[in-house]
Amino acid sequence: MLHYLSLKDIDSLPNWVQEARSLKPNPKLYKDLGKDKTLGLLFFNNSLRTRLSTQKAAMNLGMDVIVMNFGSEGWALEYGDGTIMDQGSSEHVKEAALVISQYCDIIGIRAFASLTNKEEDESEIVLESFKKYATVPILNMESSVGHPLQALADAITLAENNTKSKPKIVLSWAPHPRALPHAVANSFVEMMQRQEADFVITHPKGYELSEKITGGCTIEYDQKKALEDADFVYVKNWSSYRDYGKVTNKDTNWTIDLKKLGQAKFMHCLPVRRNVIVADEVLDSAQSLVIEQANNRTYAAQIVLKKILESLS
Amino acid sequence: MLHYLSLKDIDSLPNWVQEARSLKPNPKLYKDLGKDKTLGLLFFNNSLRTRLSTQKAAMNLGMDVIVMNFGSEGWALEYGDGTIMDQGSSEHVKEAALVISQYCDIIGIRAFASLTNKEEDESEIVLESFKKYATVPILNMESSVGHPLQALADAITLAENNTKSKPKIVLSWAPHPRALPHAVANSFVEMMQRQEADFVITHPKGYELSEKITGGCTIEYDQKKALEDADFVYVKNWSSYRDYGKVTNKDTNWTIDLKKLGQAKFMHCLPVRRNVIVADEVLDSAQSLVIEQANNRTYAAQIVLKKILESLS
Amino acid sequence: MLHYLSLKDIDSLPNWVQEARSLKPNPKLYKDLGKDKTLGLLFFNNSLRTRLSTQKAAMNLGMDVIVMNFGSEGWALEYGDGTIMDQGSSEHVKEAALVISQYCDIIGIRAFASLTNKEEDESEIVLESFKKYATVPILNMESSVGHPLQALADAITLAENNTKSKPKIVLSWAPHPRALPHAVANSFVEMMQRQEADFVITHPKGYELSEKITGGCTIEYDQKKALEDADFVYVKNWSSYRDYGKVTNKDTNWTIDLKKLGQAKFMHCLPVRRNVIVADEVLDSAQSLVIEQANNRTYAAQIVLKKILESLS
Repeated sequence: MLHYLSLKDIDSLPNWVQEARSLKPNPKLYKDLGKDKTLGLLFFNNSLRTRLSTQKAAMNLGMDVIVMNFGSEGWALEYGDGTIMDQGSSEHVKEAALVISQYCDIIGIRAFASLTNKEEDESEIVLESFKKYATVPILNMESSVGHPLQALADAITLAENNTKSKPKIVLSWAPHPRALPHAVANSFVEMMQRQEADFVITHPKGYELSEKITGGCTIEYDQKKALEDADFVYVKNWSSYRDYGKVTNKDTNWTIDLKKLGQAKFMHCLPVRRNVIVADEVLDSAQSLVIEQANNRTYAAQIVLKKILESLS
Repeated sequence: MLHYLSLKDIDSLPNWVQEARSLKPNPKLYKDLGKDKTLGLLFFNNSLRTRLSTQKAAMNLGMDVIVMNFGSEGWALEYGDGTIMDQGSSEHVKEAALVISQYCDIIGIRAFASLTNKEEDESEIVLESFKKYATVPILNMESSVGHPLQALADAITLAENNTKSKPKIVLSWAPHPRALPHAVANSFVEMMQRQEADFVITHPKGYELSEKITGGCTIEYDQKKALEDADFVYVKNWSSYRDYGKVTNKDTNWTIDLKKLGQAKFMHCLPVRRNVIVADEVLDSAQSLVIEQANNRTYAAQIVLKKILESLS
Repeated sequence: MLHYLSLKDIDSLPNWVQEARSLKPNPKLYKDLGKDKTLGLLFFNNSLRTRLSTQKAAMNLGMDVIVMNFGSEGWALEYGDGTIMDQGSSEHVKEAALVISQYCDIIGIRAFASLTNKEEDESEIVLESFKKYATVPILNMESSVGHPLQALADAITLAENNTKSKPKIVLSWAPHPRALPHAVANSFVEMMQRQEADFVITHPKGYELSEKITGGCTIEYDQKKALEDADFVYVKNWSSYRDYGKVTNKDTNWTIDLKKLGQAKFMHCLPVRRNVIVADEVLDSAQSLVIEQANNRTYAAQIVLKKILESLS
């Protein structure tokens, strides 16, 4: 039984990317594979691309889909062991996960980092609790620490646009008015560590990501130097990891424009704040791959669901 | 590629009405037409009839349906050109529309008037932005200015109940405690301008609808005179258009009762506030067509979706 | 046309339980029965098990399902007769029920007790109004007074686990921080009155359920005595019925632990507050049937929907 919690669950990234790309000419080819199987999508947080593309992927595979906004439609969950549940939580994840496993053949979960409790976030408490107590495969639709469906879509997009044997790929921090999680950046870094590339991370001092994830990566604090001769620039804001969840820098000098981008292709997971993260001129240019990335979310979700379904039979 | 943004998108109202009526004996007849096609319904506002009837119509055509409450489940959208997005909006409609076009074959949108910014409302900023940036057909599920699915259902209902070559049809304003949009009234007027009828609009002074829409219509401020010998009375509240979005009149003398109605049939789009808009005795009488109107919402949506699907193949 | 509003709508509980159990080996066997039929699920309150298991049951029967959160997605409903609707409610249940009947072949409704207006709650105002005005069957997904899908799932679970001709079954109150409705307890009692069993209800003084429901049942205020030699212990909190909707007792001596449980099987409808209603050691033991009960929710819903569908043809 295959879970998809992080990129570590992919046995061969190149193979999965290749298989995902091969779905595109005929997305309904495996419509019998998911017949009479139910995918339950549990949203603890908002979602546009993940919500729609995962439903689309499941329908392409012939699955029935049940969507639930856990916060507003269900019960507040408890995760602690031995808790006396006389406060806000009405149901323990032990029961919820076991119960939902009886109604769904695969459970997708979106649960962002709190950005207030580093230890709890790093323990992936929601995702890991569901994995521990559910009896069916779990699909990570963005968790505290990672967004592996996005990273897989990014890998597909890179494969479709790359022409070099060792392209230069830069992950650049950019400013944002609110505190954002590290999940997308983390999973992109993990994906890059499985790719042949000249990979550089750039961000202001104090914005270092977890060393457990970036270990071995080149970090260049001078954005201009980092961007030199880049083939792909992946831009993303994240809040401080050291000063956990804080916004300590809103320096608009980090915003990406065409001059900074040079000849590189521009990537971002969306939603993106125009003229804060990146200038209009970039998003509206042919160098932007953001719409292709979003399209590849369907095929990333579909290849993952296909692998999971195959692991069940 | 056919959009359905307003009644202007109907090439022949009588033909569409006729075709919609012909769907009724066998609503599933065209179930293969929508096979493997996805309808995405984006709700920026609450909905009962539109939500259910549009889903039902799509399922009758064999489509897959994805429903999303954009406000609570997605990201706040930005519509301005060149905006520095460092405030509340997380995503620009340029990205949202392009991205959703990749997951859905048709996009339905419900986005009410703000009733605070007349210019923005009249520009149909949400609907027109999606039309501009999406690459798939857009379906208007009630916008700032119009509700053409309702008007088409009303045309079907009139056709089913009318026995005269030139019936007298009255659109009458009625009081309401809260400020309501002009969309339903506007689309009804537009529809009437495509029908053979003796059409009269009646409302208190100061409640004139946009002249761009009512141009050429008879306006009679004396409700009693307007209702004389009417065959159909369509009742609806709207807030002031001149004093934009304000409730300047709650005169219960405008409430419709059986005496005022005479022999006419009563129409309303629902939801209707009983004994404010109209007396119980009218709604509970055989002269009320409101339930038929709501039923015809399914066939209005179905003929529109059928026409759009045919325009795609 | 069969409604499922309470256990009274079951002609033979043993037969329904038997038929529900027979669905388990092949849940998709009757997938043609619901073909081209639409189930509309209207949620006025939160739900996890009911939401997912009823959708699952409907999909097992081949039905299309439309889910709507009435509170947040639709309009506030009015139930009074002759009301001048100039306050918060936008739509009368008379219109809503008739309209939805035109889009859905069966309407499921979840509407909890207010716990503030005993008379209104006891009149089952939401459920009975829909039954009165709708033209299609109504399915109770937990109402003010009852939760008959839960009770039917409980009957299935008892049948699967009972080995005696007349088991001792105890319904025990347990403490809870917030005021809860009486629906689950009521329906369990009603179900027990249709079963061969030595049935005892235990709760603190002042927590008597409605005599209209418990009439003829043994009530034992000493929990220890009540639990002696029990085969099944069904635990549930409810707020005071006499002092309507009030929490007048939070005595943790009523919490169930393994010592109190003895050799009995433990039952609860979920969600359950661990270490408030019941100790971890019970839920985590093999004596707990709560996960089986939740699983049987699918088959309870499926047999009810199957009976209703058969009543339509």
